[in-house]
Amino acid sequence: LGEQVSSLLDFDGLSVHPLPLLEDVEIPAPTIRAPSWLDRIVTSAREERLTHTYGKSYRDIVRAFRLSFENAPDLVARPESEDDVARVLDWASGEDIAVVPYGGGTSVNGGVEAGGSERLRGVVSLDTRRMGRVVEIDRQSLLARVQAGVLGPELEAQLRPHGLTLRHYPQSFELSTLGGWIATRAGGHFATLYTHIDELVASVRMITPSGLFATRTLPASGAGPSPDRLVIGSEGILGVITEATMRVHVRPSFRAKASIHFQRFEQGVAAARALAQSGLHPSNARLLDGDEALLNAVALDGSSVLMVAFESADHPLEAWIERAIAVAASCGGACPGGPRLSYSDEHRADGRGGHADEAWKSAFLEAPYLQSALISLGVLVDTFETACTWSRFEALHQDVTQSVRSALHRVAGKGRVTCRLTHIYPDGPAPYYTFIGPAKRGGELEQWAEIKAAASEALMRNGATITHHHAVGRTHRPWYDRERPDLFASALRAAKASLDPKGILNPGVLIDPQVDRDHT
Amino acid sequence: LGEQVSSLLDFDGLSVHPLPLLEDVEIPAPTIRAPSWLDRIVTSAREERLTHTYGKSYRDIVRAFRLSFENAPDLVARPESEDDVARVLDWASGEDIAVVPYGGGTSVNGGVEAGGSERLRGVVSLDTRRMGRVVEIDRQSLLARVQAGVLGPELEAQLRPHGLTLRHYPQSFELSTLGGWIATRAGGHFATLYTHIDELVASVRMITPSGLFATRTLPASGAGPSPDRLVIGSEGILGVITEATMRVHVRPSFRAKASIHFQRFEQGVAAARALAQSGLHPSNARLLDGDEALLNAVALDGSSVLMVAFESADHPLEAWIERAIAVAASCGGACPGGPRLSYSDEHRADGRGGHADEAWKSAFLEAPYLQSALISLGVLVDTFETACTWSRFEALHQDVTQSVRSALHRVAGKGRVTCRLTHIYPDGPAPYYTFIGPAKRGGELEQWAEIKAAASEALMRNGATITHHHAVGRTHRPWYDRERPDLFASALRAAKASLDPKGILNPGVLIDPQVDRDHT
Repeated sequence: LGEQVSSLLDFDGLSVHPLPLLEDVEIPAPTIRAPSWLDRIVTSAREERLTHTYGKSYRDIVRAFRLSFENAPDLVARPESEDDVARVLDWASGEDIAVVPYGGGTSVNGGVEAGGSERLRGVVSLDTRRMGRVVEIDRQSLLARVQAGVLGPELEAQLRPHGLTLRHYPQSFELSTLGGWIATRAGGHFATLYTHIDELVASVRMITPSGLFATRTLPASGAGPSPDRLVIGSEGILGVITEATMRVHVRPSFRAKASIHFQRFEQGVAAARALAQSGLHPSNARLLDGDEALLNAVALDGSSVLMVAFESADHPLEAWIERAIAVAASCGGACPGGPRLSYSDEHRADGRGGHADEAWKSAFLEAPYLQSALISLGVLVDTFETACTWSRFEALHQDVTQSVRSALHRVAGKGRVTCRLTHIYPDGPAPYYTFIGPAKRGGELEQWAEIKAAASEALMRNGATITHHHAVGRTHRPWYDRERPDLFASALRAAKASLDPKGILNPGVLIDPQVDRDHT
Repeated sequence: LGEQVSSLLDFDGLSVHPLPLLEDVEIPAPTIRAPSWLDRIVTSAREERLTHTYGKSYRDIVRAFRLSFENAPDLVARPESEDDVARVLDWASGEDIAVVPYGGGTSVNGGVEAGGSERLRGVVSLDTRRMGRVVEIDRQSLLARVQAGVLGPELEAQLRPHGLTLRHYPQSFELSTLGGWIATRAGGHFATLYTHIDELVASVRMITPSGLFATRTLPASGAGPSPDRLVIGSEGILGVITEATMRVHVRPSFRAKASIHFQRFEQGVAAARALAQSGLHPSNARLLDGDEALLNAVALDGSSVLMVAFESADHPLEAWIERAIAVAASCGGACPGGPRLSYSDEHRADGRGGHADEAWKSAFLEAPYLQSALISLGVLVDTFETACTWSRFEALHQDVTQSVRSALHRVAGKGRVTCRLTHIYPDGPAPYYTFIGPAKRGGELEQWAEIKAAASEALMRNGATITHHHAVGRTHRPWYDRERPDLFASALRAAKASLDPKGILNPGVLIDPQVDRDHT
């Protein structure tokens, strides 16, 4: 494998670094103990602490390879109910102990690790995965009330017998939880309209140190600022999301797809914009640049490829896909295979449709696993993503690719940067970048930090966002702090102080808590 | 006119109550004075004070007819720039003077009147209508940066030469401002997808007593809770919205419409639900019950009518409208006229398309004026609106109509209640009710209060929202206080305390300010 990858990437001397053995890891003894009445919920077991130390970022994997677990949480809580969550928060608040909601632990930005809790006595990682049931289905309103610890595949498996689906597939789908998606404003399946989990939340329940925060299940409301929107994206700093009523979809039976090829990436961008502004609302519309198309075996000649798909449980989609192809053609796109239309009313076992672009879909979901394998080979590989207006995209793209390429050459001597657009809006795209280069054994974190900073600075100076759907966590804080209005941070700090007066929840994420009311 | 209305409504003895003369009004002298350096911006002119005393609700019109203006603001500010707004807020904060953002003054729930400011030294009404320019257009990203004091028609007039439109037509369109729409989460033209102004806001600028709150213009972001969503719906309690970058649309050229008739209202509801869940995303989909269809001259035989329309700047709409008619037909609907398709690339002067349903559209925009005329005749007439899930709608509708009818009979001896669905979502409709009965001269406010309470209680006990797009203001406070999570109110109070430490902004709206930090 090492030789294959070396030759494909033109990196020299890659060799497999053996997986570390958990028994070789040394972790400090817990600094705190839970009271015995929490024995059912809270554990100090070594393996639980180890597996709750990190998320799934490049930095996390490198640190794990180095057996560097000094950051391990003292304890791990696995509540089975809202009451259990409240018990843990009550105890932790009373004892000045940090609580880090773990979700499924797929954070790629330090969102689930201990950190920023120096003023507190210890750290509990709170894992909600024992709360994974679909509690109630309202078929008439296409709503499902779901416990927040459910994993993606578990959720789809429970919805499938009802002919329903959430159709939210972040790349972490197999390992991440509904609560985590809501807390981080995850981006999913839909390339237009219901792009973020935000749009799929009809109501939410969150346990805070000050009590239950539960919103009313409504299709829409104009009653004050949306309470849901304060919870959505709160990244565990306000409370633990325990349940949500989600807008689900009837499983689609009609599908229409097309792969449209462009000689130049800019033509594909123009087509993506035209499509986003057409009012056709495709469920999928991903533009891969030449390198991405090549690496994903979608086009082998350097063409950029726009993959467009419509799906419906209601109506055939000829008119939609034909117009989409015409829109793309007017920007220089060719669709040699023509549209592919299909009808199926079977409920597929994989929950993801499963048609001609299986190669792409499995590559999409397997990319995180591939990253781990590449890292073990000594490859420096990571992704970052953003969103900006269409008018800013050209300058942004040029700046980002040049800045990251320069950083790669500085720290690694070589490397490449590829781009795809994962979501498109009438006012702009969400570009997603992958960078890859040879790692220096022992110097990976410094290499990575320099590239990450170069990328993030380019995003900031071009008016883009530090994250379209990877969230802020701890890693993105320096740039998030420049992006969000200062007064929003003040307001959020104040809101947090009212819900989490001791500042125990996920300290250091999004804001620094205002524990002693010192900001006014 | 009185006799016509008497006969149509079967109310006896209606006669025109003469319009009050402004010169007969007595208002108290202002209790405060502005410093001379604010002379350019702030006035104590009697006429300005009178015209900024009330919004446009039933209660407001009745109180105006009674020459009851003791609530008049002491002063009226008409800033011309963000700096002017900051000057007014600085002065008012320093002097403990309430500032009530007036927008266009079309609030129907006491959102723009003095009230709740007893602890303050006086009240300034802040009118933004001198800030009405489209500042910048980004054609490529379909974005327009607009000053918040622009009125609906002014905005459309400035967008039209660019071939663009916001297509946001609340019923108050002609008199209300962009800032007011954002502050109150106004509902507009689109019956699906972009129903609330919320979805059209790409970024916002707000002047608060603590400074400028400005968000980044982005098509989407996953960086923390949305700062825009804290501003949207804040009803003037956090700051004065001065500017927003709005998602605009290319003016549509293709149109397709149909009026679908149902013998029974429930059939129309079923069709509306099927349409909302079809993924067709009509721009318009309004269901009128038999009475509404009759009063609006849309159907004269008691049929309920579903008015469906699609519009596009990109593609013909045959497939869309035909499928919509088929969906409605499967619920028992008939479309005797068939679909009406049209194409036009002219930019119409009225900014509103202007096709076969002009009668409906003009009735829609003129309804508020008709209300004033009816009130002068001694008719008790008002509307309220909500949203709920589809599974709750049947029980809600029955309870609301019965409760309001009972209240009407109790306080007025007779009266009627009609219903339409103004917006539809996959998970539920937004029903809009009109009630009408004979007023008791001098007892109108008590009559109204009893009916309003009966309606609002029915909304609450059926899991609906107190408002889909009329906002909360002061009138809806008792029910809003039960609808929103208590902890959201705590968080919002805390956020307000950080942006408006003296609690001068629109006191009494949404929450009671936490002026002395006494809630923790």
